[in-house]
Amino acid sequence: MVLTWDSTIRNELEMVEQEMRDRVFSEQSILTEISLYVIGSGGKRIRPAIALLSFRSNGGEDPNKVIKIASAFEMIHAATLIHDDINDNGEFRRGREAAYKHYGTQRALIAGDFLFVKSFKLGGIFNEVIVDMIADACTSIAESEMLQILHEMETDTTISDYIKIIEGKTAKFMEAGAKIGAYLAGSDAKRIEEMGAYGLNIGMAFQIMDDILDIVGNQASLGKPRGVDYMDGKPNLVLLYAMADETYGKEISRSFLKKDKTQEDLGTVLALVAKTDAVEKAKALARTYTADAKENIASLNDSDYKASMAILADTLVDRST
Amino acid sequence: MVLTWDSTIRNELEMVEQEMRDRVFSEQSILTEISLYVIGSGGKRIRPAIALLSFRSNGGEDPNKVIKIASAFEMIHAATLIHDDINDNGEFRRGREAAYKHYGTQRALIAGDFLFVKSFKLGGIFNEVIVDMIADACTSIAESEMLQILHEMETDTTISDYIKIIEGKTAKFMEAGAKIGAYLAGSDAKRIEEMGAYGLNIGMAFQIMDDILDIVGNQASLGKPRGVDYMDGKPNLVLLYAMADETYGKEISRSFLKKDKTQEDLGTVLALVAKTDAVEKAKALARTYTADAKENIASLNDSDYKASMAILADTLVDRST
Repeated sequence: MVLTWDSTIRNELEMVEQEMRDRVFSEQSILTEISLYVIGSGGKRIRPAIALLSFRSNGGEDPNKVIKIASAFEMIHAATLIHDDINDNGEFRRGREAAYKHYGTQRALIAGDFLFVKSFKLGGIFNEVIVDMIADACTSIAESEMLQILHEMETDTTISDYIKIIEGKTAKFMEAGAKIGAYLAGSDAKRIEEMGAYGLNIGMAFQIMDDILDIVGNQASLGKPRGVDYMDGKPNLVLLYAMADETYGKEISRSFLKKDKTQEDLGTVLALVAKTDAVEKAKALARTYTADAKENIASLNDSDYKASMAILADTLVDRST
Repeated sequence: MVLTWDSTIRNELEMVEQEMRDRVFSEQSILTEISLYVIGSGGKRIRPAIALLSFRSNGGEDPNKVIKIASAFEMIHAATLIHDDINDNGEFRRGREAAYKHYGTQRALIAGDFLFVKSFKLGGIFNEVIVDMIADACTSIAESEMLQILHEMETDTTISDYIKIIEGKTAKFMEAGAKIGAYLAGSDAKRIEEMGAYGLNIGMAFQIMDDILDIVGNQASLGKPRGVDYMDGKPNLVLLYAMADETYGKEISRSFLKKDKTQEDLGTVLALVAKTDAVEKAKALARTYTADAKENIASLNDSDYKASMAILADTLVDRST
């Protein structure tokens, strides 16, 4: 068997799928349908994978200990996607119409709440330490989404503002997953922190790659159009670097600040960005995070799980979807 | 001191206010602001009161045991109000602009999620029994909101459909609060069920009175316009009874089914409803629930708390706001 980031946890990931399907059952079948529409539309299952790999690589043996919480992470993620798309008017998600487009905003909003509640019910099986870690990570998501809104159409957003936004929006949630995996495997406090740092670094790299793919990705394989952040006035990392470019920065900034952007504007800006080193700079930053992530797992005993975690780090920055 | 429904728990209710203010603190001050805008806009605090009274009337002594969970109930309620208003385009709430009108839909949606998460963090302090009761009640809210949407503009909604909707939307949440209060006071299973039945019956009466006030209430003291359910195509109990009236029912139904209703239509319908016995019938049904609620507390030892619970039952059906 060729080792990939998920080859060591295929069975566990299948258990997560089953757990999620069981958990979203509702006597109001439309809630189940919307939940499955979102959960079933693919996605890489990075969040449960991080919890599962952290558990296994730290010697955790009984997967049943970690499946429910790993599932809760993916369900919370699905809930945030539903609400995000409502807020961003995102039309496509994973190659499908966004849930609110398909089912209407009212139903999608309620389905998001439903998924949140079902996730917290799963979290409640565990003790306060775990509930706190999840709740704090979810708080960070809400706070960072708010911070992101406050920075919309702001060309003077700094890289450090940006880092703060993606930390809260994506990375802290993955940090929590990695910490909980190690905690459930019985690791000590130092190891739990190391695993948390791995999750955080992975999350940063993951989100930066998302930004890069928003600029240079392939629409068909991404399942959504390019340039969404530009159109929405969200200064992602590539755009921030590009707007700081000596030659083309001013023109890109002017275009970014336009209120009613056209597809033609987008084409022009993407061509300008391509003339800068913004994508390379963003990739370089992503790679510093994956390098750190690999250091964070250095103290683990060697195992296929540990190897998977290193592969996951590399895969995230080499991916095209 | 004259005994009222809340005179016995004034200190505890003040502790709940403080707890909520502490809990909604966020480094993103706008999240705190929106949370306080909604929480601080008044409201009767019925949900925490039910948990507090159930705790006290069952011999619970240390209020600190119950304050956090009582606060979680009010915060979850606030979260659902924010999301409900987005879904219903409700313009006013407790005499103020709805949060999404005041802060914009994006920010309000996130603030609702934030309040949910903060409530569940509070819930996580307690054991799985309690988290389950809250999560299941929240699931019922989501399910009933969905059921309510499915019944919009449906004149063939039955009274039993209606009962099911308000049970899930309002009453089961109050049931959970009453059960948890008794549970934390150390009551036995039978007593916990009795208290749950009290909460459920109170909740049914409360929601029916809400429907009645939507039809015959005073706009100024309600803090929102009358006839919202009619305008939104929601067949509330009074409207259901009125649409079944032999003389005026057909005309009321026809008007209810109109797509673009005017204030004039509303005036006409309210005048027609007043000619039927729909409000009296609805009040009679509410009174059967409060009578049941008072029976549910019969086995409690006499105390001012028990007396408050009986007063609360009566107050809910005699209220004008």
